[in-house]
Amino acid sequence: DSSLKLFALNSNKQLSEEIAQIIGVQLGKCSVSRFSDGEIQINIEESIRGGDVFVIQSTSAPVNEHLMELLIMIDALKRASAKTINIVMPYYGYARQDRKARSREPITAKLVANLLETAGASRVITLDLHAPQIQGFFDIPIDHLMGVPILADYFKNKNLQDIVIVSPDHGGVTRARRLADRLKAPIAIIDKRRPKPNVAEVMNIVGQVEGKTAILIDDIIDTAGTITLAANALVENGAANVYACCTHPVLSGPAIERIQNSKIKELVVTNSIALPEEKKIDKIVELSVAPLIAEAIIRVYEKQSISALFD
Amino acid sequence: DSSLKLFALNSNKQLSEEIAQIIGVQLGKCSVSRFSDGEIQINIEESIRGGDVFVIQSTSAPVNEHLMELLIMIDALKRASAKTINIVMPYYGYARQDRKARSREPITAKLVANLLETAGASRVITLDLHAPQIQGFFDIPIDHLMGVPILADYFKNKNLQDIVIVSPDHGGVTRARRLADRLKAPIAIIDKRRPKPNVAEVMNIVGQVEGKTAILIDDIIDTAGTITLAANALVENGAANVYACCTHPVLSGPAIERIQNSKIKELVVTNSIALPEEKKIDKIVELSVAPLIAEAIIRVYEKQSISALFD
Ligand SMILES: Nc1ncnc2c1ncn2[C@@H]1O[C@H](COP(=O)(O)O)[C@@H](O)[C@H]1O
Ligand SMILES: Nc1ncnc2c1ncn2[C@@H]1O[C@H](COP(=O)(O)O)[C@@H](O)[C@H]1O
Repeated sequence: DSSLKLFALNSNKQLSEEIAQIIGVQLGKCSVSRFSDGEIQINIEESIRGGDVFVIQSTSAPVNEHLMELLIMIDALKRASAKTINIVMPYYGYARQDRKARSREPITAKLVANLLETAGASRVITLDLHAPQIQGFFDIPIDHLMGVPILADYFKNKNLQDIVIVSPDHGGVTRARRLADRLKAPIAIIDKRRPKPNVAEVMNIVGQVEGKTAILIDDIIDTAGTITLAANALVENGAANVYACCTHPVLSGPAIERIQNSKIKELVVTNSIALPEEKKIDKIVELSVAPLIAEAIIRVYEKQSISALFD
Repeated sequence: DSSLKLFALNSNKQLSEEIAQIIGVQLGKCSVSRFSDGEIQINIEESIRGGDVFVIQSTSAPVNEHLMELLIMIDALKRASAKTINIVMPYYGYARQDRKARSREPITAKLVANLLETAGASRVITLDLHAPQIQGFFDIPIDHLMGVPILADYFKNKNLQDIVIVSPDHGGVTRARRLADRLKAPIAIIDKRRPKPNVAEVMNIVGQVEGKTAILIDDIIDTAGTITLAANALVENGAANVYACCTHPVLSGPAIERIQNSKIKELVVTNSIALPEEKKIDKIVELSVAPLIAEAIIRVYEKQSISALFD
């Protein structure tokens, strides 16, 4: 239908092309560039009046550039009389700043929600929020998709034997449980604790890993410190093989080097964040969330329930 | 008084130090840094509860980084129970995107106003907005300071003879008039027009410049194309000397090279935008807006009228 308009900003061009192809539309014509002084210049080159517009942009690094592109695009669409402005954010940046852990901290994840609404967003479609509570930061509808089924299908097809799903910390146990259910496997937990202040952490493992193929799962892998230390602990405790997976491959700083040098056999990620060429190492397998997101867009556009896509 | 709290973010540390010194307070302790993935991390290291807080930040390049620092700082201050959050923006980025010149353009200057209010700003103090109409984009009080008196004082002290103040385009005539009044000088206008489409512009000059010392004035000098072409036209029309001045030295792309190679004898700017070392060439003279801004902050804090500072 001609009133579904799909636009890609600069974070995920390839994913956006894939989504457009699955839906069977062309990406909307628009250029997102910079003036000489670095200010963002957006030109939407086709009418979107009265349309249901979907804008695809992850607020991955450079996060502030990507977020401002998105806010300015929403402003332009609103002033060009879009009927609805639906934001597709496969990766929601600043999600880890979701509470005041100490005095006088900002809650930037909530600020971002407010900024999107102020700019004029009508709806947000996102994937594996660092904390599901972030849904409550919005007063507009938010659809929260899950990456676990995509990761689970990949491992199912690999036909690994005698597996155990491992959460690298206490916060990720629910996620590990969800993957374990789909793979009909037991779980284990890396139980880090610091016996005394200023003493190195002890990596204790709760659950059976000896002789097994361990699959570590997290939502975000950023500097890869947690996940590579967890992999080492698993091998030391007798795991036969260690795989790792996550939805959002942030992979900043020393991440690639750490993964390369770690005991991890294969790291499975999604394309919620586009990997630049230099991060596409042999150990990393990229799965596409395009079919999932395309399905969500179609259902939102056709006003069908999308809850079936949530897990 | 201890309930006036002054904070500097990353755009204008030196100007902020000067302002603090004039007011007679210490800058508040806070660190504005980056997590490994580029997300902004702000730590406010002293209590600001119940305080009247002033945050100094120009949204100069990198504009999106500086703007997000400011928004996140406002969020943190609001959650830390500041009584008022006063934003001091010597340079207001995105001010040139202040209207829809073509279909489907954003009005980013208005978006920025909305974002600042949404984050929690109580008041804005700014200097020489590209268009004074931007004041109307805010629903909170905005104080609009003028740089012309500072530029005028500098030229008065130089004791130049037989001067003419020149506007480089039609849009800047009011500004030129204001400087001319203070220097008791006549004005001239560079009257660019394109005789036919795809034919080079003709630089016509309205007013007397022959044998005179011309002072070009603009609000922003960005790539310096307009101002250096205007200087050439003045010399071709017999001006004896050409000075130039502006409030906001954006100076992006080829600006420094163009100014270096131009007929401009001296370019006088303010420190509303901090000049990096490589832009501090001999031809450029930097005047400080610290006394003006310090005075405005004191008057706002003491709830005095600040209209006397407007021109
Ligand atoms: N971009 C980031 N990189 C690393 N740590 C972060 C980032 N954003 C927030 N944090 C910190 O991560 C912690 C929250 O992470 P978590 O405990 O996994 O929810 C908080 O203490 C935040 O200050
Ligand atoms: N950062 C920028 N650099 C150069 N041009 C800009 C910038 N922002 C906006 N503009 C354009 O400048 C024009 C407005 O400038 P002016 O006519 O001087 O008010 C508009 O056509 C804008 O699209």
